Amino acid sequence: MITSTSNSQIRHVAMLQKKARYRNSEGQFVAEGIKMVLETPPELLSRIYVSEDFQPEKQVRAWLSDKSCEVVSSKVFKELSMTQTPQGILAVVHMSRPTPEEILSSGDCFLILENLQDPGNLGTIIRTAEGAGIDGIFMNKTCVDIYNPKVVRSTMGSLYRVPFVYTDDLQSLIKNMKTRGVRLFAAHLKGEKAYYEENLSGPCAFLIGNEANGLSDETAALADVYIKIPMLGKVESLNAAMAAGILMYEMRRQKATAHLGNHHP
Amino acid sequence: MITSTSNSQIRHVAMLQKKARYRNSEGQFVAEGIKMVLETPPELLSRIYVSEDFQPEKQVRAWLSDKSCEVVSSKVFKELSMTQTPQGILAVVHMSRPTPEEILSSGDCFLILENLQDPGNLGTIIRTAEGAGIDGIFMNKTCVDIYNPKVVRSTMGSLYRVPFVYTDDLQSLIKNMKTRGVRLFAAHLKGEKAYYEENLSGPCAFLIGNEANGLSDETAALADVYIKIPMLGKVESLNAAMAAGILMYEMRRQKATAHLGNHHP
Repeated sequence: MITSTSNSQIRHVAMLQKKARYRNSEGQFVAEGIKMVLETPPELLSRIYVSEDFQPEKQVRAWLSDKSCEVVSSKVFKELSMTQTPQGILAVVHMSRPTPEEILSSGDCFLILENLQDPGNLGTIIRTAEGAGIDGIFMNKTCVDIYNPKVVRSTMGSLYRVPFVYTDDLQSLIKNMKTRGVRLFAAHLKGEKAYYEENLSGPCAFLIGNEANGLSDETAALADVYIKIPMLGKVESLNAAMAAGILMYEMRRQKATAHLGNHHP
Repeated sequence: MITSTSNSQIRHVAMLQKKARYRNSEGQFVAEGIKMVLETPPELLSRIYVSEDFQPEKQVRAWLSDKSCEVVSSKVFKELSMTQTPQGILAVVHMSRPTPEEILSSGDCFLILENLQDPGNLGTIIRTAEGAGIDGIFMNKTCVDIYNPKVVRSTMGSLYRVPFVYTDDLQSLIKNMKTRGVRLFAAHLKGEKAYYEENLSGPCAFLIGNEANGLSDETAALADVYIKIPMLGKVESLNAAMAAGILMYEMRRQKATAHLGNHHP
């Protein structure tokens, strides 16, 4: 059992929890909690840590039975945990790093996130994106780190199932998408038509900007269509994750009901 | 200028920030930050506090010009503030307390929240509800306190514009709604039809349950229709605020496009 926080493995985990730069240079991150650990694809698992007082249920015991675990003292585990009530299990996980080309070739509906800052928003977007059937997510490098422990937790495992990539150059990516026939929709104050008045059932991507400032002018200028999400009352904008979710689920609705001859302009 | 945190006014504000029970017994809460303070209906304003180093822009100065402010030292303001980077202004605000009957008589589309726990979720729901044109929100008393500073902030002012009430007895409320011809929709695992396959353009209410456990059996049993939000991949549920937002905006979409003869079952 590891009882010291100065143990080199423990220092490695602690650094992965706290430092985005360290995570990126190591190509690893931490998945904490029963749900996240058990949903980790086996080929990405590097090492599992459990607290000495971890009492796994039957399903968890079965899952652990063919894997090796490091046991750490409860004091050490509390040091490593980023949650208020630690569940007693975490894993160091290798990052999966698809290329933009791999993601673009794997489907035809995407999200592009620019300068998104809130970890909870990013987690919610990834979870909703999986539900709505989004094929991949592209982010510029000023977005919050997807391997931030808060993001990882709030994805509820979707992190492992929705391909994503950070890019230095959204502009080239967007141009690449256009040559593939993907239509780019930006929720924008300049939008004249409501999102549900556009045909979202073909190859498409949604551009979502920063929580406070929206999309940059340069990125917004690359959109094929500005759409608006109509808002009653005095609401000036919706939460970024909410806006993304409403657009993604309208896409899903249109795809599901296209055979019914629903109105598309 | 108030320089002591033991001043009785300051103690009052600090208690309002921290204690739900105190807020309820006093019938007051705190609105913090420029946006929230300026959106407060004048008849609800009790007292405005600004930090000695508060430097208002022109618009804020104009708004303040016919009102009296208490100036407090920056040290005292930091004590009172619940934000990491205080904007230097907050207000004590009287609660607006409509009755359930008043809300029910004022419109025909509602939200009912049961045991919702996350302040950020509640704030996002209220903001989205205003945008989607919801006429009122009903909550049972085990929901998170809407006057929790985190909720207040995340509503971006919608708190003042969407009527809401806490009730001890959701069951009676729901029965009352039914006698008024309101159809009750519950997002539920037992739902067979997708939410977009139901007609949501008439009088309706959406039942939204707890983040982890969904609706209680007793409340779910009172719904007229179970609906599902289809989810691809391995997603088991959406974030509660996201689910509420998707349903509310589908209602809005149906109302906006009803004249186009869109498909309604």
